Amino acid sequence: MSDVRVHNFSISLDGFATGAGQSADAPFGHAGERLHEWMFTTRFWHEMGGGREGGTGADHAFAAMHSAGIGAEIMGAGKFGPPGWQDDPDYKGAWGPNPPFHTPVFVLTHRPRPSIEMEGGTTYHFLDASPAEALKKAREAADGKDVRLGGGATMIRDFVAEGLVDHMHLVQVPIVLGRGVRIWDGLEAIEDVYDIEAVSTPSGVTHLTFTAKRR
Amino acid sequence: MSDVRVHNFSISLDGFATGAGQSADAPFGHAGERLHEWMFTTRFWHEMGGGREGGTGADHAFAAMHSAGIGAEIMGAGKFGPPGWQDDPDYKGAWGPNPPFHTPVFVLTHRPRPSIEMEGGTTYHFLDASPAEALKKAREAADGKDVRLGGGATMIRDFVAEGLVDHMHLVQVPIVLGRGVRIWDGLEAIEDVYDIEAVSTPSGVTHLTFTAKRR
Ligand SMILES: NC(=O)c1ccc[n+]([C@@H]2O[C@H](COP(=O)([O-])OP(=O)(O)OC[C@H]3O[C@@H](n4cnc5c(N)ncnc54)[C@H](OP(=O)(O)O)[C@@H]3O)[C@@H](O)[C@H]2O)c1
Ligand SMILES: NC(=O)c1ccc[n+]([C@@H]2O[C@H](COP(=O)([O-])OP(=O)(O)OC[C@H]3O[C@@H](n4cnc5c(N)ncnc54)[C@H](OP(=O)(O)O)[C@@H]3O)[C@@H](O)[C@H]2O)c1
Repeated sequence: MSDVRVHNFSISLDGFATGAGQSADAPFGHAGERLHEWMFTTRFWHEMGGGREGGTGADHAFAAMHSAGIGAEIMGAGKFGPPGWQDDPDYKGAWGPNPPFHTPVFVLTHRPRPSIEMEGGTTYHFLDASPAEALKKAREAADGKDVRLGGGATMIRDFVAEGLVDHMHLVQVPIVLGRGVRIWDGLEAIEDVYDIEAVSTPSGVTHLTFTAKRR
Repeated sequence: MSDVRVHNFSISLDGFATGAGQSADAPFGHAGERLHEWMFTTRFWHEMGGGREGGTGADHAFAAMHSAGIGAEIMGAGKFGPPGWQDDPDYKGAWGPNPPFHTPVFVLTHRPRPSIEMEGGTTYHFLDASPAEALKKAREAADGKDVRLGGGATMIRDFVAEGLVDHMHLVQVPIVLGRGVRIWDGLEAIEDVYDIEAVSTPSGVTHLTFTAKRR
């Protein structure tokens, strides 16, 4: 069966994947852009349309795993848009007219709406469904390829708790946020089900990979 | 002035420095010995009297900083003994007749008692005092050498919050404990006052060092 993968999911030392006070102007709340600065200096980011030319070192190698072999993404309502987007019937997501997904994207929300076709191969579908049901739909759409879980922390925790995630790549950034949504809550003893590796890189971040143990 | 240093302070991925349910038989509660296994395989630990011969790689290099140049330690009541030790007037600490400190040790407690002289140069003094006052006493006893903060997390957080800590070495172990005493609480934006480095080693842990920025 195809794999379920998490990539480039950035957290603070204290485990927060977003700060407090998310809004349209501050998608990560008081964290600002600090959780993702490590990625902005990679060639991967440049190839996604980002500014600088970027390096091809370890940060790039990890970041570039994001896209290969992915046939669909599942994301939470909090990644799709800022709090309250559900009240705007014309809202098309925080990711611009040509979103960086280029596959079907399943948005988990308790207030689903009709699908939206965007430029570049991204189509948003809205689902009010359990993690297992959502994954079934995404797998069908992915047509044999892997499914990426886009975050945020809330939905990733739910999928991990149900044993649905094969590979997870977290990037720990050396800041302490103190407030926000924490990835670790409810994941006690995750080391029993995943092999965990840690690799620090010269940019100062530590890449944590979680590979599901063969059951 | 002499430095205030934290060494070999081990935490889980989710930041817990001890598990829940501490007792005489389980000084780290449900964490067991997992927070310190990385240290048991170092030459440093062997030289402290531990079993195996131990390696001299990066884990050893970090661990061995523990003792050099230290003239006194300050520890919290929770490191001195299990919950309730204060009710036993003859209690002499969880660290055996010849404790591994070999200097004056100041134990912070709201129920102080007379000093206890142990073998090997360790003398326990008991203090009900603010961090700054306790540090003043420890500095006098250290006679120009550095002061080590022994932990647990509760007392280290208090000293960091008051800006009293010059160097901090944490060791992040790839387990998620879920419960216990967390180091990060109240340390938001610690990156503004410390230069932070991360180094992962082949044993799977990540050494985090915090060096106070020149003010
Ligand atoms: N650090 C990173 O790398 C990273 C990556 C992605 C996102 N983020 C950030 O993380 C934040 C969002 O994360 P988050 O944890 O707050 O939220 P999230 O995981 O994106 O979304 C959670 C929300 O999705 C809906 N939902 C989740 N599961 C559902 C289900 N099974 N059925 C129906 N609806 C479901 C619910 O919203 P409703 O009840 O409102 O429908 C729920 O509150 C944003 O700030 C985003 O920028 C960070
Ligand atoms: N992970 C590691 O590397 C590491 C290192 C050291 C210890 N530990 C573990 O951590 C645990 C203990 O940590 P902890 O955070 O629970 O407690 P702790 O920091 O050792 O001690 C906190 C206690 O010390 C007393 N205290 C602290 N500041 C004081 C002050 N200014 N004046 C008077 N009393 C003061 C208070 O006890 P009273 O009110 O009872 O007097 C307070 O509850 C133990 O399980 C230990 O094994 C782990």
